[in-house]
Amino acid sequence: MEKAINILGRQNSLYNQFIAEIRDQQIQQDRLRFRRNLERVGEISAYEISKRLNYKLDEVKTPLGITDVPVLKDKLVLATILRAGLPLHQGLLNYFDKSENAFISAYRKYSKDASFSIRVEYLSAPILENKVVILSDPMLATGSSMVVAYKALLRKGLPKHTHIVTVIASREGIDYVRKHLDLKNISLWVGAVDDELTVKSYIVPGLGDAGDLAFGSKSDNTESETSEEITED
Amino acid sequence: MEKAINILGRQNSLYNQFIAEIRDQQIQQDRLRFRRNLERVGEISAYEISKRLNYKLDEVKTPLGITDVPVLKDKLVLATILRAGLPLHQGLLNYFDKSENAFISAYRKYSKDASFSIRVEYLSAPILENKVVILSDPMLATGSSMVVAYKALLRKGLPKHTHIVTVIASREGIDYVRKHLDLKNISLWVGAVDDELTVKSYIVPGLGDAGDLAFGSKSDNTESETSEEITED
Amino acid sequence: MEKAINILGRQNSLYNQFIAEIRDQQIQQDRLRFRRNLERVGEISAYEISKRLNYKLDEVKTPLGITDVPVLKDKLVLATILRAGLPLHQGLLNYFDKSENAFISAYRKYSKDASFSIRVEYLSAPILENKVVILSDPMLATGSSMVVAYKALLRKGLPKHTHIVTVIASREGIDYVRKHLDLKNISLWVGAVDDELTVKSYIVPGLGDAGDLAFGSKSDNTESETSEEITED
Amino acid sequence: MEKAINILGRQNSLYNQFIAEIRDQQIQQDRLRFRRNLERVGEISAYEISKRLNYKLDEVKTPLGITDVPVLKDKLVLATILRAGLPLHQGLLNYFDKSENAFISAYRKYSKDASFSIRVEYLSAPILENKVVILSDPMLATGSSMVVAYKALLRKGLPKHTHIVTVIASREGIDYVRKHLDLKNISLWVGAVDDELTVKSYIVPGLGDAGDLAFGSKSDNTESETSEEITED
Repeated sequence: MEKAINILGRQNSLYNQFIAEIRDQQIQQDRLRFRRNLERVGEISAYEISKRLNYKLDEVKTPLGITDVPVLKDKLVLATILRAGLPLHQGLLNYFDKSENAFISAYRKYSKDASFSIRVEYLSAPILENKVVILSDPMLATGSSMVVAYKALLRKGLPKHTHIVTVIASREGIDYVRKHLDLKNISLWVGAVDDELTVKSYIVPGLGDAGDLAFGSKSDNTESETSEEITED
Repeated sequence: MEKAINILGRQNSLYNQFIAEIRDQQIQQDRLRFRRNLERVGEISAYEISKRLNYKLDEVKTPLGITDVPVLKDKLVLATILRAGLPLHQGLLNYFDKSENAFISAYRKYSKDASFSIRVEYLSAPILENKVVILSDPMLATGSSMVVAYKALLRKGLPKHTHIVTVIASREGIDYVRKHLDLKNISLWVGAVDDELTVKSYIVPGLGDAGDLAFGSKSDNTESETSEEITED
Repeated sequence: MEKAINILGRQNSLYNQFIAEIRDQQIQQDRLRFRRNLERVGEISAYEISKRLNYKLDEVKTPLGITDVPVLKDKLVLATILRAGLPLHQGLLNYFDKSENAFISAYRKYSKDASFSIRVEYLSAPILENKVVILSDPMLATGSSMVVAYKALLRKGLPKHTHIVTVIASREGIDYVRKHLDLKNISLWVGAVDDELTVKSYIVPGLGDAGDLAFGSKSDNTESETSEEITED
Repeated sequence: MEKAINILGRQNSLYNQFIAEIRDQQIQQDRLRFRRNLERVGEISAYEISKRLNYKLDEVKTPLGITDVPVLKDKLVLATILRAGLPLHQGLLNYFDKSENAFISAYRKYSKDASFSIRVEYLSAPILENKVVILSDPMLATGSSMVVAYKALLRKGLPKHTHIVTVIASREGIDYVRKHLDLKNISLWVGAVDDELTVKSYIVPGLGDAGDLAFGSKSDNTESETSEEITED
């Protein structure tokens, strides 16, 4: 049986070493290493997820003989949330190098009556019908961005299964995903789960702002990645 | 004096070897190598551009002595156009590993009277005032996307200088950039210049669709990256 | 309990995908991809081995709080057999980036009476006493090179534990290692086990000559890496 | 005309930025970054050397047309001196990904009468006749190792041309190479030239021991890489 929620840091491994460096406010000053750590965590996640995928035997001709080797059967799409997800996505792509890719930025637009619609800022994706999607974002804070991104992706068809990859999640974020998405077709892959979420939606102890640490801070703008806008429709 | 337009492929080097592989319809089927070639071309572009940047002497303490070494003085921002620019941007970032980053998707929205405004789909950027921007996109076809992206970036301040990096440009695209942007503060770095541009805005011989080759094709959608929308305002 | 022999390909994962490409006589013509596949297999091996290592809690200061994270406690030395082991070693080093390293080329020198001594062509290694050694070579054919290399390393002290990493092993090679080395302090990590070994000591179906595929063929020479020389002392 | 000695750091570029980090005794503590900097310097050297190589036009079929693109004509062999040369060699191989490779460890063995023979500890190389060799070692201190390595390589045939790549050279080392090798068929590519050489043959200010910084220190042993042994033949 598929396990819906997988905490990879529960078993000690290099993943925890990389999380230690990702969290450390001295070490994370080195952006090259910070991005590289997210990449490595992406690679490890790719490998662990790959144990759940489907394989078929392919006849391979070596220089000395013929043999059957199991190769990937599922059609994969690697999707990530801009911009913070890019280094994690790069790690996934390092291992699933033939896969299709999707990039997404979406947010909720609220009406006066508190109803909302999902607004897509940017969406580039292939048809997802019957494919296996791996959707990545380094932080799962409130869980809201992830749910919005997932729902935006559905415009391209219903995947056979979606693996959500994140490095650090808040307990609240996991509950939110569990509540708003059907975990029958979704698995969650998390490095570590932190207890606290501040009013400003920062995970504590967390790691700070993954996007800023990877790419530098950005100036305020009305097109911010994950903002929730309020309008009077 | 700064040269405004630099055709790096004019002098034979590994850059041309990489272009040969990027163009080749057999070799480009290997997405890992295709992306890697764009990365390498990004690294080479970074290095050539770096010869034009400003340096200051830093006192460095080695294990055996003290010496002055020239280090970068300019504040760099690497900006790229989604999604096709990502591998090229990765190459630039491999070399300018401490720089800030910007990601952009923008298009022209036309009114009935044929006037238009630049609509930003997605823009994540730091303040650009007085910084050196390196803006990348592998293809310069009509030149329109590049000009739109550049103008969208200006919302974040006027850079001291902007280096535009592209692998293959059409002659028409270069003329368009030359006409619409002030080349006093902009330099263009191109691998190869192709003569023809089809009615559908494909460069010939070109290389095909760089975004599709790197990331797989995408399904049609109304939020397409560079579309020019027409509305009646 | 530690398992002495671990066949990582028994469970389907990306490892098998990479083995398929490593074996395939068409795909292996691309040396960049061949080396990259050995690197990825080295990374996966590093990760799986890391689940058996010892960790200690380190207090880490994040930008928002303090937390204890498990980090590696063991002192690692990555050792490899020249030249074929280099890409696999690179993969291990990609993940264990702080470790010490050893490089070795050794062979048996036989006397007329069939006794032999281990001759070291090249050995660069730190003190190994009480450290954890990861010794890599992509092929375990007869097993003789691995045993010779291991014994040469012992000149630098007795490791606490040694993990031997190989991609494709013959059944005979595994038996040889099992017979000649004490598996109490040694674990074996193998991608796939092949049945046959030719009289020329090639594994069938195997993958061919890993050194040649990664680095090009070499001209014959008396200083060949793994030859067993016969002299009359 | 070929220039025999090329000091790449004379013109400010990212190369100098990387040298600053390589020299800095704080920054060089991060082995991942130290090796990565040597790799990047290897890539830049590969690119600059490639401007001197020979190209031929290849007909390339793009998805939209046919065009002639210049591709490498020379047959390249990347040779490096163990172990310190490996990260630099990796950088060269990142760019010349199809080349053949050679690995070498050699030293002088002196006789009582002060004559000496070149003893090869380890040599793995293809036939070099008429090929272009790129021989790398990060430090050119006395120049003796480089000359010995070059002469050992000649056992495999006389290359058409040899490019020697080093990051930091002493003035004395350059003079030594100039005196002992025929610069008609050899070019030297250097990042920076330092004035002083200590009695223990360390370059000052230099960077310390490149091998130790990349791979950790090694225990003393009689098979040391570059030792000069004295025997009574």
